[in-house]
Amino acid sequence: MWRVTNLPAHRPERVVMKFGGSSVADPEKIKNVARQIAAAHERGLEVVGTVSAMGKTTDSLIALAHDVSPDPNGRELDMLLSTGERIACALVAMAIHDLGHVAVSLTGSQAGILTDSSHTKAKITEIRATRIEAALAEGKIVLVAGFQGFSRETMDVTTLGRGGTDATAVALAAALGAACEIYSDVPGVFTADPRIVPDARKLLAISYEEMLEMSASGAKVLMLRSVELARNHGVRIHARSTFSDEPGTWIQENTGMEQPIVSAVTHNESEVVFTLSGIPDRPGAAATVFDAAAAAAVNVDTIIQNVVHGVAELSFSVPAEDVPATRGAIDVATAALGTMEIEENHDLGKVSLIGAGMRSHPGVAAKMFRTLADLDINLEMISTSPIKISCMIERGDIPRAVRALHAAFELEREPVAE
Amino acid sequence: MWRVTNLPAHRPERVVMKFGGSSVADPEKIKNVARQIAAAHERGLEVVGTVSAMGKTTDSLIALAHDVSPDPNGRELDMLLSTGERIACALVAMAIHDLGHVAVSLTGSQAGILTDSSHTKAKITEIRATRIEAALAEGKIVLVAGFQGFSRETMDVTTLGRGGTDATAVALAAALGAACEIYSDVPGVFTADPRIVPDARKLLAISYEEMLEMSASGAKVLMLRSVELARNHGVRIHARSTFSDEPGTWIQENTGMEQPIVSAVTHNESEVVFTLSGIPDRPGAAATVFDAAAAAAVNVDTIIQNVVHGVAELSFSVPAEDVPATRGAIDVATAALGTMEIEENHDLGKVSLIGAGMRSHPGVAAKMFRTLADLDINLEMISTSPIKISCMIERGDIPRAVRALHAAFELEREPVAE
Repeated sequence: MWRVTNLPAHRPERVVMKFGGSSVADPEKIKNVARQIAAAHERGLEVVGTVSAMGKTTDSLIALAHDVSPDPNGRELDMLLSTGERIACALVAMAIHDLGHVAVSLTGSQAGILTDSSHTKAKITEIRATRIEAALAEGKIVLVAGFQGFSRETMDVTTLGRGGTDATAVALAAALGAACEIYSDVPGVFTADPRIVPDARKLLAISYEEMLEMSASGAKVLMLRSVELARNHGVRIHARSTFSDEPGTWIQENTGMEQPIVSAVTHNESEVVFTLSGIPDRPGAAATVFDAAAAAAVNVDTIIQNVVHGVAELSFSVPAEDVPATRGAIDVATAALGTMEIEENHDLGKVSLIGAGMRSHPGVAAKMFRTLADLDINLEMISTSPIKISCMIERGDIPRAVRALHAAFELEREPVAE
Repeated sequence: MWRVTNLPAHRPERVVMKFGGSSVADPEKIKNVARQIAAAHERGLEVVGTVSAMGKTTDSLIALAHDVSPDPNGRELDMLLSTGERIACALVAMAIHDLGHVAVSLTGSQAGILTDSSHTKAKITEIRATRIEAALAEGKIVLVAGFQGFSRETMDVTTLGRGGTDATAVALAAALGAACEIYSDVPGVFTADPRIVPDARKLLAISYEEMLEMSASGAKVLMLRSVELARNHGVRIHARSTFSDEPGTWIQENTGMEQPIVSAVTHNESEVVFTLSGIPDRPGAAATVFDAAAAAAVNVDTIIQNVVHGVAELSFSVPAEDVPATRGAIDVATAALGTMEIEENHDLGKVSLIGAGMRSHPGVAAKMFRTLADLDINLEMISTSPIKISCMIERGDIPRAVRALHAAFELEREPVAE
């Protein structure tokens, strides 16, 4: 059994509370966030809050940069973008003051968030939390501007790229020995997207591994990056709703005795599949393609290669937003490998089953394929990991595939280890 | 003669170029500012730029703060407001990169602008320009976010209050041994407001003293504060137009042999006169009133006191925006001194003559009063300094008073020392 009793029985003494851009989109929402942070402080916790920029601020700043410059300098773009979170943080701190608590907002650099020097996609290297610790010791609530840090090497402001504020929250929790609460407009992690599967069930807890696979295969609750960071530092994440006091989903080490075979069905409708044919089948051909893709920062997901009559056919899927970069990477590869036939398929989607228990249950894949076959759904590509099976199918078939798989694996019921 | 040949014949090696909010209000204007800065760099100068927040950004941020909090915390307000200049600076730096120059934007703290800890109205205490000097030595253009610094005592971001970016520019010029070019939408300092006096003449140069009196008596080209700072540190300011290459007006030590009797007519239509009657004529009564006004940060201008039959009548003028604070200060004074009769007059304006030469020409005041009397204009209050005479008159009479004085002192002609 995956037992609820294995969840922590006492509240942590310290908590990092993270609120996304939609939670601080206007003054009323900012005051609401302030109330939640103040309430945690009133319950006796030491509280560090971190927030994203208000609503679509970051998008607006990026648009402004592109109005000024066709190719904005990375260092300056970071200087620009980092202001969004500072604004939100200062406003939340003001609102907390009005509730009778003392709050202090800190920029990434004031908070001691050290990163490498990769502008617009910096990685956190260390957190020197002396200033945060001092403020907490004085009984203050600390607000840290998310999504940013600074490079000790260049002394410049950096930003952390996609999922940056979640990463800030998890890294702070790791440095401070705190639990990490990530608030958003969804109440937790579900067995499937409730908009597609009406009886989808909110999970009480899920392991880091499963959450990683879910994030990688389309679940939008948490960014892959922050889950990875949490796993590496043993930070427990509580993913919950900004608009409700109900418990959400804990992402943590698996503490149950046994693991559910299948925890959830996820799907992704925003991938594009590239197929390259006529590639010379010589050592390093695939490497040339994916070196170029990596250099262009393309997030390649599924990869399949077939060799027929000495000529390889290579298919891979990428997120829709990486399509221009992928085209550029293919041009680079073509220059090295010679002309290839290139196809783009924008009509596919991916449905995935995630479950830590499936590695010891080889029948899961077969049951999945049979369920989809019964719906007359063709499998275009298949990829697997020890705890995940993904199928690329026609995008229009995604909703009924998700519903059928959710029902076939009885995910609406509390899982029972078999 | 005030000779043009006394102006500097060679360009300075270093220049601080300051652009106000209207000069960076949109992407096109930002690119224009970038072109001007790049052009200076191409002329072989070492260039430090400093800009205000775009257009009405600061006002919007203040409004946002007041939407969130009725009385925003000063430290957090500074954290919030300082972002406006950072945004503008980063955008200008991006645009300069596109012109083939290397630019680096620095926050106030990165630029080493140290201040006291008075949030929202901090004073610059020191500039540690090591990072700026290093960047200049590498051939880079440096952009410094205006209006801000940081307190070494609290390690917090501070803002400099009204005229803060002008103060940033002058302080940087002092620290770097640079000339200071202040760009705005007016082409320089005029003998009177050209909207009122069509033949008002742009001054080639004016002394710090005269500029101080002009700023204090209504000329809006430069804030009093930055002129004071420039005088104290011997920084030469060139006030000029963002939209033209024409020389503007140099504000500097008087280098001419003799000084013009009258340099300019200024006016101010936004002052309010308070009159307190029935004040006990005892030592310290006026001090009580102005102590309270100072504590409320009211900028008192002209003060007049009369004592009749042992009861004092006290009049003073304040800027319109200080009226609420003034009322509060009067309440405080009333508590200490007893009930007074209080009058507010919102229908007055002030016209002033400024001229370094008038201190040795006692006839100037008489000629001014005669000119106004010939127009049937009544003088409500008079105040003088060695280089200025101001008269409070009916606000509606201001335009014809300014025109008559400009003509009477022949300011449309190049001045000739008498």
